[in-house]
Amino acid sequence: MMDKKRGKQSYVLPDKPRVTAWASMAGKKEAAGPLGATFDETFEDDTLGEKSWERAESKMLEHVVDMALSKAKIFADSVDLFLGGDLLNQIVSAGYTARSLGIPFLGLYGACSTMAESIMLGSMLIDGGFAHNAVCATCSHFSTAERQYRFPLELGSQRTPSAQWTVTGAGATLLTKDTTHPIAVEAATVGSVYDLKQTDANNMGAAMAPAAMMTLKAHLSDMGRKVSDYDLIVTGDLGHVGYDLMKILCEKEGICLDKRYIDCGCEVFDESQDVHAGGSGCGCSACCLNGWLYGRMLSGEVKRMLFMATGALMSPTMSQQGESIPSVAHAVSLEVV
Amino acid sequence: MMDKKRGKQSYVLPDKPRVTAWASMAGKKEAAGPLGATFDETFEDDTLGEKSWERAESKMLEHVVDMALSKAKIFADSVDLFLGGDLLNQIVSAGYTARSLGIPFLGLYGACSTMAESIMLGSMLIDGGFAHNAVCATCSHFSTAERQYRFPLELGSQRTPSAQWTVTGAGATLLTKDTTHPIAVEAATVGSVYDLKQTDANNMGAAMAPAAMMTLKAHLSDMGRKVSDYDLIVTGDLGHVGYDLMKILCEKEGICLDKRYIDCGCEVFDESQDVHAGGSGCGCSACCLNGWLYGRMLSGEVKRMLFMATGALMSPTMSQQGESIPSVAHAVSLEVV
Repeated sequence: MMDKKRGKQSYVLPDKPRVTAWASMAGKKEAAGPLGATFDETFEDDTLGEKSWERAESKMLEHVVDMALSKAKIFADSVDLFLGGDLLNQIVSAGYTARSLGIPFLGLYGACSTMAESIMLGSMLIDGGFAHNAVCATCSHFSTAERQYRFPLELGSQRTPSAQWTVTGAGATLLTKDTTHPIAVEAATVGSVYDLKQTDANNMGAAMAPAAMMTLKAHLSDMGRKVSDYDLIVTGDLGHVGYDLMKILCEKEGICLDKRYIDCGCEVFDESQDVHAGGSGCGCSACCLNGWLYGRMLSGEVKRMLFMATGALMSPTMSQQGESIPSVAHAVSLEVV
Repeated sequence: MMDKKRGKQSYVLPDKPRVTAWASMAGKKEAAGPLGATFDETFEDDTLGEKSWERAESKMLEHVVDMALSKAKIFADSVDLFLGGDLLNQIVSAGYTARSLGIPFLGLYGACSTMAESIMLGSMLIDGGFAHNAVCATCSHFSTAERQYRFPLELGSQRTPSAQWTVTGAGATLLTKDTTHPIAVEAATVGSVYDLKQTDANNMGAAMAPAAMMTLKAHLSDMGRKVSDYDLIVTGDLGHVGYDLMKILCEKEGICLDKRYIDCGCEVFDESQDVHAGGSGCGCSACCLNGWLYGRMLSGEVKRMLFMATGALMSPTMSQQGESIPSVAHAVSLEVV
């Protein structure tokens, strides 16, 4: 067996599993943002006709998976694996989606890094000979996340300037070993957990930026690459506070991030939308990737992209006990072949 | 690349990744049970000197990983991957353990199926050429689980006869590609999510038994095997209610489970311990496997074992919304080579 490990925490995927199909869905606020036209579907009613926001979130995840499979013209019973997770306790959106789909299910928890974690693992399992295809998906919902992680919305609490707005959205990527498709997963870096002792649950960007920097640094060093080897380096949801911090942290390490570097949390909303530090949530990078970003690759504008979703492993229980917020970032390198 | 898929949801691992080292730890009640002598360490004070049960749970997980690495005479920085999760929201025990260890971390959520999910994924990644070794670990704590999933312990709520007692315990398995070790992971079955509409959060056994039956049925059919091809078939934590139900459900499918079939939830406590339907929690199957069960393989008593941990993807939020409890079971086939 060929050794696919590079350096301390990176991997090459010699068979280059392909992205066959993708789909995204987002709510009203996201639809009104700069990327509104790039989502497959948007909706006005944030309950999607369900009796709770949690049920709406599951429905959204199920729907993006259905859309991705339908674009690839396959049924769920010909998909080998479903890899996914979400922000809700016990990853219920993914669990209920797995129940509906019937696809063998690998439940993941990487907070907002889930989109990258699922694509990374899915492509490794395909490259390793364990699956012909795999669907990787995640989602988040503003109203379920707020009440679980912060305050009941009914309280109308004021949000701090560093707070981010959880994206109501979902995205699904279908991976396959069939090499007739142009977008390939060619390398990946598994993140370690970092914690610079940030304790403010309303400043996720600052908690996650160090993990993003460490994963980027490891990736470039492990793979013997530099920033200019990528047309685009994308973080998940650092938002404006985390984005600026990421650039400073990288500069200290001798990594100069220029305009090739963007963050989904900064792109998904514009300043007029009163979202403070930007977007966040698993659905943020998921709905940006599964439409807008793959689209830029397909059009030839972006040839190689490092997609690095970041997760704050934030627990209200542990925050109440005075613990700080550990974070992780996973990276996948996607290229047009 | 050789196709390692068998049937609908099973996989062979041609390189047969090995179990190099393992470690387990359990609390006072578990120490007083029938398997008390098989744990590496037990403890009297369920806070382990920490200021909260949650911190004690993290400490326990960290300690079993440390013990497993120390038995294998390696340091954390020579371990490629840490795969783990736990029952706490945002899998904080695993997250904080990953932060201490610094090993690249893949966070999983499979509820009580996590021990099998982590070994399955870890061995696939090793077999696929992505890692030389991987540590797979999980844990649970009676006092953290009760207050998160059911009632604050201070209420002194009466427990129903079908309720199970969450094991305070942890277990870690170190996997490697080095084939000098005798216990190998040779096949695996990824579970699908099943839900027979059970809504009682105090009867996890009944919720999980259908998933366990479906995974066993798929495994035997995919691999072209029968019950007698195994010396031992082990479920995670169905407990007495789920164990009996599992036998009935299997019989209906023409699978006759005889005395080769055991459940960790039934083995870890004895009847005099007032635990009602038996043990449960991620730590239940983890501390049984990482000591007692591997020990039975090492002694030559068990040559091939199907280890099938079962997870109820139970969410208090969704239960309050009237939802039922979906479940999943993952299986790994371990053999002495």
